Amino acid sequence: MKRVMCIPNYSEGRDEEKINKIVDCFRNVSNVKLVDYQPDKDHNRLVVEVIGEPESVIKALLKSVEVAIELIDMRTHKGAHPRMGAVDVVPFIPISEVDTKDCIEYANTVASAIGDMGIPVYLYEEAATNPERKNLAKVRKGQYEGFFEKIKEDEWTPDYGPKEMNEKSGATAVAARFHLIAFNVNLNTEDEEIADKIAKKVRHIGGGLRYVKAIGLPLEEKKQVQVSMNLVNYEKTAVYQALEMVKSEAKRYGLSVVNTELIGMIPLEALIDSASYYMQIDGLSKDQVIETLLIEE
Amino acid sequence: MKRVMCIPNYSEGRDEEKINKIVDCFRNVSNVKLVDYQPDKDHNRLVVEVIGEPESVIKALLKSVEVAIELIDMRTHKGAHPRMGAVDVVPFIPISEVDTKDCIEYANTVASAIGDMGIPVYLYEEAATNPERKNLAKVRKGQYEGFFEKIKEDEWTPDYGPKEMNEKSGATAVAARFHLIAFNVNLNTEDEEIADKIAKKVRHIGGGLRYVKAIGLPLEEKKQVQVSMNLVNYEKTAVYQALEMVKSEAKRYGLSVVNTELIGMIPLEALIDSASYYMQIDGLSKDQVIETLLIEE
Repeated sequence: MKRVMCIPNYSEGRDEEKINKIVDCFRNVSNVKLVDYQPDKDHNRLVVEVIGEPESVIKALLKSVEVAIELIDMRTHKGAHPRMGAVDVVPFIPISEVDTKDCIEYANTVASAIGDMGIPVYLYEEAATNPERKNLAKVRKGQYEGFFEKIKEDEWTPDYGPKEMNEKSGATAVAARFHLIAFNVNLNTEDEEIADKIAKKVRHIGGGLRYVKAIGLPLEEKKQVQVSMNLVNYEKTAVYQALEMVKSEAKRYGLSVVNTELIGMIPLEALIDSASYYMQIDGLSKDQVIETLLIEE
Repeated sequence: MKRVMCIPNYSEGRDEEKINKIVDCFRNVSNVKLVDYQPDKDHNRLVVEVIGEPESVIKALLKSVEVAIELIDMRTHKGAHPRMGAVDVVPFIPISEVDTKDCIEYANTVASAIGDMGIPVYLYEEAATNPERKNLAKVRKGQYEGFFEKIKEDEWTPDYGPKEMNEKSGATAVAARFHLIAFNVNLNTEDEEIADKIAKKVRHIGGGLRYVKAIGLPLEEKKQVQVSMNLVNYEKTAVYQALEMVKSEAKRYGLSVVNTELIGMIPLEALIDSASYYMQIDGLSKDQVIETLLIEE
């Protein structure tokens, strides 16, 4: 069955009643599974994670947008996390039997509907209509407060909705993107500078792998350092490639890997890809994993 | 949700009507999924693979036993595969939220019910009541024709049912066992003798790994040889251990692995186990694999 993941972020992380009314839009909806939701008081932000059949997810999401723009007033919103609107970001991520192209379509459907609610909408990541809009940080720069001016600039005409800021609800960014794999590699040294140097060689902007973002961090208690990576397109840059590159850079300092961590979720395809590399397995497919027999059809 | 796999084998692989009547017992049964069924004309044998909630699987299975012993007459059965009864073997395999202990319980429930139908039943593998009955080949030795005498021996008193052969339906063997992983490693030589030597060092009976069965085979077209392995308890002997041991034995002949093959299915746990070994991942759990979110609860 077609399955998509959607991780909308709303600018409300404190008022439990409001939070529940938003989350309720995803509860007991057939073909939609509420995976998780995390309100954050400091950020004053709610992150919802749902997975399900695309049409049903889109329908539930648009209902939640209606609820959120009713309940949230950006004119009084304060929080530590950057934000530009009541419904701040809506990324779609392909899970099964849908691809990035499909997710771009869902993003456009949703962006158009939110635009019709009188909210300026920007498409980002794979759904971006020009390279300047790919990066969310660039799109959101200036935040809610700055958007009243930014929206007037020619290059920041919204993809959908009015070319005018919505005072109450702000603006919204909608995306199609890959599942992001958070992968950390811990090394047997306390020298943070080395972790930093390795991170710079491995990451895309430093001349490294195309879809890797990386930073070096100290792990003070463990007396180790960590190369903390985000793999933003696991289909093109595999987990094993990132690991092997860290290892090969670590070698020049006589260092080795103590262990690694996968934070959050990983698609089965990515796991198979890396296992197949190390074990030289020929043609292992998702369907051969017993647990896929338990997936609802 | 609790899920068990059951792979009953019936002594009918030719008569389509009979085959369908048996397989029908698993069709459109709630909480039971018919994964596959393979009738084999030469073997004159039907292998059915189902997965589902244990109680529902047991109920469907017992219905299929009733149908099979009605339709199949062992007095006229001929086929290339060893067999001792109309319902020849019934292994239960733990899939999720059930363990071997649970499967031994299911095996006993089923064995008792089949015994009540007037059929002698033997428990094998993990469900075996003594070490002599662990191995199916030993239990089945003598086959249908030989069992009329074998059953009279003290050490071959059935675990359930009459101490007397059932002329029409024969005897049945019921088991709890682990999922068997079929894993082949191909080496860059045409020397079959080397494959044979490596297989002997790697397998349990040759002094190798506890839960590995292995043989050496020629791959004539590819001009390679294969160490073909069955891993019978992946929780205790991991796939990576088998692979590393083949590699280490291959080294003494200056050989290396060309590629490997996983035939049939592999449990997610086994895949995670080996991926974690090679990537040094700390504490990766099944729940972190996105696809597990799609499993019916």
